[in-house]
Amino acid sequence: MVIRPHQHWFFRLFDWHGSVLSKITFRLSLNIMMSIVAILIYQWYEQLGIHLTIAPFSLLGIAIAIFLGFRNNACYSRLVEARTLWGSILTNQRNILRNIKGLLPNDPLAHRTFANLLIAFSWSLNHELRRTNPKVDLYRLLPRDVFLDVIKSPYPTSRILMHIGLSVGELRDNNLISDVLFQSINKDVNGLSEVLGGCERISNTPIPFAYTLILQRTVYLFCTLLPFALVGDLHYMTPLVSVFVSYTFLAWDALAEQLEDPFDVLDNSLPLNALCTGLERNALDMIDAKQLPPPAKPNKYFNLL
Amino acid sequence: MVIRPHQHWFFRLFDWHGSVLSKITFRLSLNIMMSIVAILIYQWYEQLGIHLTIAPFSLLGIAIAIFLGFRNNACYSRLVEARTLWGSILTNQRNILRNIKGLLPNDPLAHRTFANLLIAFSWSLNHELRRTNPKVDLYRLLPRDVFLDVIKSPYPTSRILMHIGLSVGELRDNNLISDVLFQSINKDVNGLSEVLGGCERISNTPIPFAYTLILQRTVYLFCTLLPFALVGDLHYMTPLVSVFVSYTFLAWDALAEQLEDPFDVLDNSLPLNALCTGLERNALDMIDAKQLPPPAKPNKYFNLL
Amino acid sequence: MVIRPHQHWFFRLFDWHGSVLSKITFRLSLNIMMSIVAILIYQWYEQLGIHLTIAPFSLLGIAIAIFLGFRNNACYSRLVEARTLWGSILTNQRNILRNIKGLLPNDPLAHRTFANLLIAFSWSLNHELRRTNPKVDLYRLLPRDVFLDVIKSPYPTSRILMHIGLSVGELRDNNLISDVLFQSINKDVNGLSEVLGGCERISNTPIPFAYTLILQRTVYLFCTLLPFALVGDLHYMTPLVSVFVSYTFLAWDALAEQLEDPFDVLDNSLPLNALCTGLERNALDMIDAKQLPPPAKPNKYFNLL
Amino acid sequence: MVIRPHQHWFFRLFDWHGSVLSKITFRLSLNIMMSIVAILIYQWYEQLGIHLTIAPFSLLGIAIAIFLGFRNNACYSRLVEARTLWGSILTNQRNILRNIKGLLPNDPLAHRTFANLLIAFSWSLNHELRRTNPKVDLYRLLPRDVFLDVIKSPYPTSRILMHIGLSVGELRDNNLISDVLFQSINKDVNGLSEVLGGCERISNTPIPFAYTLILQRTVYLFCTLLPFALVGDLHYMTPLVSVFVSYTFLAWDALAEQLEDPFDVLDNSLPLNALCTGLERNALDMIDAKQLPPPAKPNKYFNLL
Amino acid sequence: MVIRPHQHWFFRLFDWHGSVLSKITFRLSLNIMMSIVAILIYQWYEQLGIHLTIAPFSLLGIAIAIFLGFRNNACYSRLVEARTLWGSILTNQRNILRNIKGLLPNDPLAHRTFANLLIAFSWSLNHELRRTNPKVDLYRLLPRDVFLDVIKSPYPTSRILMHIGLSVGELRDNNLISDVLFQSINKDVNGLSEVLGGCERISNTPIPFAYTLILQRTVYLFCTLLPFALVGDLHYMTPLVSVFVSYTFLAWDALAEQLEDPFDVLDNSLPLNALCTGLERNALDMIDAKQLPPPAKPNKYFNLL
Repeated sequence: MVIRPHQHWFFRLFDWHGSVLSKITFRLSLNIMMSIVAILIYQWYEQLGIHLTIAPFSLLGIAIAIFLGFRNNACYSRLVEARTLWGSILTNQRNILRNIKGLLPNDPLAHRTFANLLIAFSWSLNHELRRTNPKVDLYRLLPRDVFLDVIKSPYPTSRILMHIGLSVGELRDNNLISDVLFQSINKDVNGLSEVLGGCERISNTPIPFAYTLILQRTVYLFCTLLPFALVGDLHYMTPLVSVFVSYTFLAWDALAEQLEDPFDVLDNSLPLNALCTGLERNALDMIDAKQLPPPAKPNKYFNLL
Repeated sequence: MVIRPHQHWFFRLFDWHGSVLSKITFRLSLNIMMSIVAILIYQWYEQLGIHLTIAPFSLLGIAIAIFLGFRNNACYSRLVEARTLWGSILTNQRNILRNIKGLLPNDPLAHRTFANLLIAFSWSLNHELRRTNPKVDLYRLLPRDVFLDVIKSPYPTSRILMHIGLSVGELRDNNLISDVLFQSINKDVNGLSEVLGGCERISNTPIPFAYTLILQRTVYLFCTLLPFALVGDLHYMTPLVSVFVSYTFLAWDALAEQLEDPFDVLDNSLPLNALCTGLERNALDMIDAKQLPPPAKPNKYFNLL
Repeated sequence: MVIRPHQHWFFRLFDWHGSVLSKITFRLSLNIMMSIVAILIYQWYEQLGIHLTIAPFSLLGIAIAIFLGFRNNACYSRLVEARTLWGSILTNQRNILRNIKGLLPNDPLAHRTFANLLIAFSWSLNHELRRTNPKVDLYRLLPRDVFLDVIKSPYPTSRILMHIGLSVGELRDNNLISDVLFQSINKDVNGLSEVLGGCERISNTPIPFAYTLILQRTVYLFCTLLPFALVGDLHYMTPLVSVFVSYTFLAWDALAEQLEDPFDVLDNSLPLNALCTGLERNALDMIDAKQLPPPAKPNKYFNLL
Repeated sequence: MVIRPHQHWFFRLFDWHGSVLSKITFRLSLNIMMSIVAILIYQWYEQLGIHLTIAPFSLLGIAIAIFLGFRNNACYSRLVEARTLWGSILTNQRNILRNIKGLLPNDPLAHRTFANLLIAFSWSLNHELRRTNPKVDLYRLLPRDVFLDVIKSPYPTSRILMHIGLSVGELRDNNLISDVLFQSINKDVNGLSEVLGGCERISNTPIPFAYTLILQRTVYLFCTLLPFALVGDLHYMTPLVSVFVSYTFLAWDALAEQLEDPFDVLDNSLPLNALCTGLERNALDMIDAKQLPPPAKPNKYFNLL
Repeated sequence: MVIRPHQHWFFRLFDWHGSVLSKITFRLSLNIMMSIVAILIYQWYEQLGIHLTIAPFSLLGIAIAIFLGFRNNACYSRLVEARTLWGSILTNQRNILRNIKGLLPNDPLAHRTFANLLIAFSWSLNHELRRTNPKVDLYRLLPRDVFLDVIKSPYPTSRILMHIGLSVGELRDNNLISDVLFQSINKDVNGLSEVLGGCERISNTPIPFAYTLILQRTVYLFCTLLPFALVGDLHYMTPLVSVFVSYTFLAWDALAEQLEDPFDVLDNSLPLNALCTGLERNALDMIDAKQLPPPAKPNKYFNLL
């Protein structure tokens, strides 16, 4: 996620980072080339009775804009839902730790155990969603036996959640908490389970491939033919207007593609590492840990990963 | 659901699988034929004072695009809701198994029973929604008496859910769990009940038939008349532009029709078989089963069923 | 609700049932007449300096399409919410019966009592929403004293719900279920209460009358004036294009009006009778009744009521 | 809320009540005047080289229509949410009374006390939202000491809710209900608390004032300039087309403004008085009161207040 | 948030406060200058064969309007969600205080403690979201030891919430409330936790930066080029129409940017100070405090902060 320090609107026009410009530079160059070709061969093919006007492109362009709007909506909803799910980890983590601290005020070991399990949950989910190796983080956070059990499962995050649930169950077995309170904490563990399921769902189920396919085909073909439709009216202004229209359409298309997978490490993805660090800091603060890890900072491209 | 390995945007333009091109090839050919007819007879019918211009088609095209956008939204929501419901099975299944394991840590038989019932629930729902025969899967998973009871009911999935509920009730009757904990697990069973009801609702209630009817009529008529409106301006370019506009409209219409029933086995449906296999693998992993079935893979058309 | 057997797209173009064509035939005929008038008197009023062009109609048409899309969205949401509420009856009914069966496995009389009360609830709601007489159905399903109490109240469905609640309360009074379990079943009764309140809300509160009024006025005036705007360009093609544009707008308007009251018995309403029959079948199956009523079938117009 | 007896579509075109026509008559007259001015001075200012064409107005008109659609959506959502909240009062009231009746079947005094408190809650909320004096209604419904306590608070509805909560608490203190049942009823009281908070939120937080400001400015300026853009093409038809386009835009703008405050007493507001009467009738019916107040009826302008 | 006393629609056209005019005055002036430049150099560059027509700008303008509508929707949803979260504080605060009062009717000290903690929670959240110093408010409201503990944490609001939770836990430890009632109040504390998490999420996660970037670039470029496209048709009317179109687009863009961060102190942000004062007044009224702070009032620019 790109986090920009405040900028004057004028400089923002030339901002490179955080935009999707880098993804579409080639296609925009193609478009300019096409415009030049159109200007050069215009008189020749006019004579052949080949003729394109802007009217059908106007109709097509608006239709494509409506469909692009629809696809962006669908992709943006995925980002919002993903962010809400990650926000829900924070809420559930706070509820669990608050309850643990309230019910066992004099047991710092239990506080630490639960805090570590919860921190491991979010890091493991992060690694699962980004398809990176969770071993280093889990080794750092989990007791040895739990680590070994988790690491060998094909569903490590689900395993960690089970261990959180079993740890709450142990409190009940040792009569430290009643069934009613067990149920209360269990509800928050279920909340984490919903987050896990929700993130896996978003990650496994892209929006129907045909949306992407149909839109990209029509957008690319539209941008390719546009110069030939404009050249009759605009002559030497064709490249400017054509690349401007193409930028609008291609940029929205490229952005939708980026937002479709909110767990990627692109400019407009969720900053899972920063979120995990925040969750870790918050959990450690709640159990009065002495030292918190430093908060995550954007890299030199203003990108928070 | 079509799952594509990463593709360069250029090759994607010619991708056949996962698009709806196969469904609309015939209508696009018709459109090209119409365009040729329009070019051939244009001069003749012009003389008769019959004349079509693009302006009213521009208005119509945008109106149809707005309505197509609306219908796509409605159909896509059904897909998203269906996927969310199936994701909810995973969450509820995990919660139930986590609780069973926590409450009865030393009773592997109970773990296995519940895991099998839950796996049978999702396979049975799959078969019910796709109107296939559940017998083989249920026979594999259910104890004999439950199998016989389930198979003779007109609502087998609902029956399996009842058996899950009754099994939880038995734990309570045998004083293995208190009323409070019964209620807690019961809530997750209710969650499965909501999934079942929701899927049946989506499956039984198509979007109002008139939406499909009105849109298809207007789209088809629009595409048929379009060449005659374009030919006056575009002459030999009529087929190209006409088929391009028609592709945009027909493809969105065809896609909406596919998405309307998310439980079908089309290119853009939900991969219920893969989801069931995933649920089965996850349940077996949670009860520490030795062998998990292999994860589902897309077929040679990149289609995950 | 119209349920169509699968149809080839070609024949669908001429489908009469399930479309709203019958509602707008008269207005479409009017439109054709207007077009003919426009052709006949065109030259005469042109001389008077009266002149209409298509440009302002293009602007208006798109604005109206946007507003029609908005109204359709609002009306369709009502249909979806109504259907979801009825789906929720099924879920709650299943939960209640599952719990009753699990808690009182050997009391078939109690099963039958609750099943009948629940079936009566859905039939009564159906009659209340469609403003038909519930007496025959309630007499068939309710014990005599409950029937008399229900029938004399101005809110019969709410009364039946109270009797369901009181019956659950009796189980608690007789110490057959604990307070915790009472609360658990009570939650499902509350679920039915939400359905009842939601359906009454949809039924009592139409969308703001001004939406309908403004849109219908603008749509009708638009369709009436359209031929005069088209005739200058299109001459003899005016009737065709004009009736085509009018069909698009009038059909969407008529459909929105149908969807506004989802509990009516129109082509695009909810099939409440079929839903009630399904609920009855499911309840009877759950209590192992010997005979189930046959499932509802569409009538000869493919309409499921 | 305007409730219309069924009307033929033809007469509906001339319906005055329930539309927003009365609010925009003056501005429409202004528009006609402007059109006449435009016709009269057209030739004169044309000579000065001042010239307006319809093309930029087409672009602007569609942009404004899109933004009007957005604002209408936002305002309509407020109406729907407000109605849903009021529907939720009915559900919670029924749940509370059903539980009170079930738990204390032989205590008609308690039934009456709770019914009156609940009825007072909805009337007080009505008065708070419409900024009218609640004294007469509260005096009629509340016991003397509660009345005095409520009436002196700046938050009377919140106070009544507290008294409902305290009354449930008293039942618990007197051991008439257990903690579990207290919690169950408390949940419905919390439901009422959510309704109260939600209604206050809608009432206190208008949609951002800038939306209204920007849209009204652009709509009014658009309608004022439109005749000058149309007159070049349409001559004597300018007033007709101009007033038609203006009606479409001004009516949607005026309607959005009405819907923004759903608790007002305008043609398209919620009928709070009728809803309160319905809630009162339902509560009294549930406690078997002998006499119910008559249901609310629309006034002679078909307006239900 | 700008709260306007009722205004006649005519004067509203010239309202300065509450609109975003001040933010875009410079860019509108630029646009007028560009129009004048266009008029002056029009004949000269026409001769060079450089030519811009309005048709491609029409297409672009509508596409941009659709995308602006989408971005406004996304930003407005954030405002609505933020307001709903703050409304939820009121509901949860009322529930907690009602329960505390009902369970400990004779302990005014406990009432005061909880009221102060809850008031401190909302003020602290306000300061956290607006990045102001909470010390003065917390010092005023919290007991000394809690104050010191809260103030040194990097997450002060989360700390206060923990102290609320621990205070409820103490009631349970002292056997003043049972586990069931603890769980009931704990649910409301979880509600506050959700509000906290939700507000932090909105505050930390802007909408994808690329949306802002792409839209502002296209809007600014569009407004800059527009005069050159209009001047051919409109001559001396170019500045008027151009600034009108630009106002529509720039104002919507500027408004979306304001709504993106609903916790700012701009004209269209949420009035957090006023909300906190309201929460404080309500809490103090519920515990029968003698003196309430005065309600917040808009400043002389009609702005409620």
